[in-house]
Amino acid sequence: MPVSLDEVYIAVIGAGRVGNCFLKQLAYLRKSCPSPCLRLCYIGIIGRALHHVDYSEVEIDTALGKLKSQGQAPPSIPWIIDYLAAAPSKVVLVDNTSASDLAEAYPLFLRRGISIMTPNKKAFSGSYQLWQDIFSGAKSAGSHLFHETSVGAGLPIISTLKDLIVTGDEITQGGGQKWSVTVRKAKQLGYTEPDPRDDLNGIDIARKLTILSRLAGLPIESPTSFLLQNLVPQELQAVQSGEEFLQRLPEFDNQMEMHKAAAEREGKFVRFVGSIDMPSREVKVGMERFARSHPIAALQGSDNIISFYTRRYGENPLIVEGAGAGGDVIAMGVSGDLLKTLPHIAW
Amino acid sequence: MPVSLDEVYIAVIGAGRVGNCFLKQLAYLRKSCPSPCLRLCYIGIIGRALHHVDYSEVEIDTALGKLKSQGQAPPSIPWIIDYLAAAPSKVVLVDNTSASDLAEAYPLFLRRGISIMTPNKKAFSGSYQLWQDIFSGAKSAGSHLFHETSVGAGLPIISTLKDLIVTGDEITQGGGQKWSVTVRKAKQLGYTEPDPRDDLNGIDIARKLTILSRLAGLPIESPTSFLLQNLVPQELQAVQSGEEFLQRLPEFDNQMEMHKAAAEREGKFVRFVGSIDMPSREVKVGMERFARSHPIAALQGSDNIISFYTRRYGENPLIVEGAGAGGDVIAMGVSGDLLKTLPHIAW
Repeated sequence: MPVSLDEVYIAVIGAGRVGNCFLKQLAYLRKSCPSPCLRLCYIGIIGRALHHVDYSEVEIDTALGKLKSQGQAPPSIPWIIDYLAAAPSKVVLVDNTSASDLAEAYPLFLRRGISIMTPNKKAFSGSYQLWQDIFSGAKSAGSHLFHETSVGAGLPIISTLKDLIVTGDEITQGGGQKWSVTVRKAKQLGYTEPDPRDDLNGIDIARKLTILSRLAGLPIESPTSFLLQNLVPQELQAVQSGEEFLQRLPEFDNQMEMHKAAAEREGKFVRFVGSIDMPSREVKVGMERFARSHPIAALQGSDNIISFYTRRYGENPLIVEGAGAGGDVIAMGVSGDLLKTLPHIAW
Repeated sequence: MPVSLDEVYIAVIGAGRVGNCFLKQLAYLRKSCPSPCLRLCYIGIIGRALHHVDYSEVEIDTALGKLKSQGQAPPSIPWIIDYLAAAPSKVVLVDNTSASDLAEAYPLFLRRGISIMTPNKKAFSGSYQLWQDIFSGAKSAGSHLFHETSVGAGLPIISTLKDLIVTGDEITQGGGQKWSVTVRKAKQLGYTEPDPRDDLNGIDIARKLTILSRLAGLPIESPTSFLLQNLVPQELQAVQSGEEFLQRLPEFDNQMEMHKAAAEREGKFVRFVGSIDMPSREVKVGMERFARSHPIAALQGSDNIISFYTRRYGENPLIVEGAGAGGDVIAMGVSGDLLKTLPHIAW
């Protein structure tokens, strides 16, 4: 008979848009899944952290308030690893940041038996060496790693890709993400990074493609090691602030209109997409033309669309589509990962 | 430390279109996942079954051939349950049939600790009492049940719905499936049941809606307990054969053209869809009109589309789309379920 562990310790780092939603969902999970008991034992943000030396529980509902009133300067990452590795039961680190230094320490956490759930793209789209260290670290200690939300927020993209591969299907092609010329509006709606150039330079979608390519079996070296079209006009790449960029962008509206008009003459429209072609091992991000009947035509707001072309699905791809950003849906994906991990670690 | 079981016994019933593909994928899984070892101990089809009293392995690659040459008349379901419950390790029943009698016995399998993976809709869209018996049976014995493929074949629909619910989102609406007026062509392409009326009467989509409604928390009594528009003209409902039905269907083409023309005058088109409205608890299957920009417009072939409207996703639904039929993609979903179950049962 399997023996259940009564408790799983949870360490949460990051309490911004995603972390905040995640804490609410964690409180919900703690009540709705009585076994194993999820105990928050560490919470940290930039400049502050809260934990107890005896691992006694940090109450989730009041954690953020207490973090502000009683929090201390955060300990170093090696100290956090030692602290969590010595916990009296299994531990899951939930990294809701997009911090590189934490991402680079994942192999150290995993090798000490600490499982990780995270939307942080940095770890999986950094160097290929880091990718390998992460997975070999997890394997060596039997710790677990879920990062569904590192691509497409709460959409079931990574799990779908893994299912396709692990059951022996062959991916032929995959990709897709909407590009909006209405940059300012997108920024006002909160769809872009603080500096919209971080979206328009393609690096965000390149990170996602790096992750999906690696999962599909291509040893992509880094998000900058394949063809990447930068939509930021060359003249604006060096301007200092995002605000100045937005002010000068109208000078380049004509250029974009020409692309659109050329596509329209073919009865098509333009989208900024990423694609992975497995047979030719080609990964690229750039503007492409699509027929009006293509599902990508109906995309709305900040929605993402991803199409999996596989041997089994043939010419009609498996498509997943929906909101690809937003604290609540990212947090949902992280919570979903956590629930999937519990049977792996708690028995 | 968790203790791994070395072996998981697999019983496969049904070796038609889905079962055949599943056996190939099982052979692949057996090789690619060395631990736990997946041992085929029972294989059955209508009229024949093969197993060894000492539970020694039935070689997967040659199972179908041996079933034909050495198979015996299949034992009764109670005998199969006793046989599997007495196996020396955990057992998973993979039901690749659409048999009602087997579906009705699920509670008996589950109560004896036998986990079940299946695309068989019958068990989950039968009476609500059977649904309750199935889940209470599984709970009482700690056995597991995955049926991703009972809705939308290999598409991640049920797992997505479960993730949405378990992380505390609220479903507001869900549904969708293409309806083709080109019935004969659809039949020739193998998209329909042998008698196409079994698709056009809406019962297939009603079964799927029943399953999704119940998972979302509505205690739907049966697939016939909600509004169901039968597309088979009343005059043809009683004709004896599917062939006669197809021959007489052109008499009713005008009727259908009128529906289409009326929608076109509004700039819309018609689809045969199912929908679940959670706030009003309304479930229905019927013809509805959609704007041309709706994603359902771009549907191809036998593709399914399902849109989840939830509190978190707001006005832009989470959409999953792709082939909703086909042996290989259904078998893929069953294999995926099996892989997800292993950590639950093998530790």
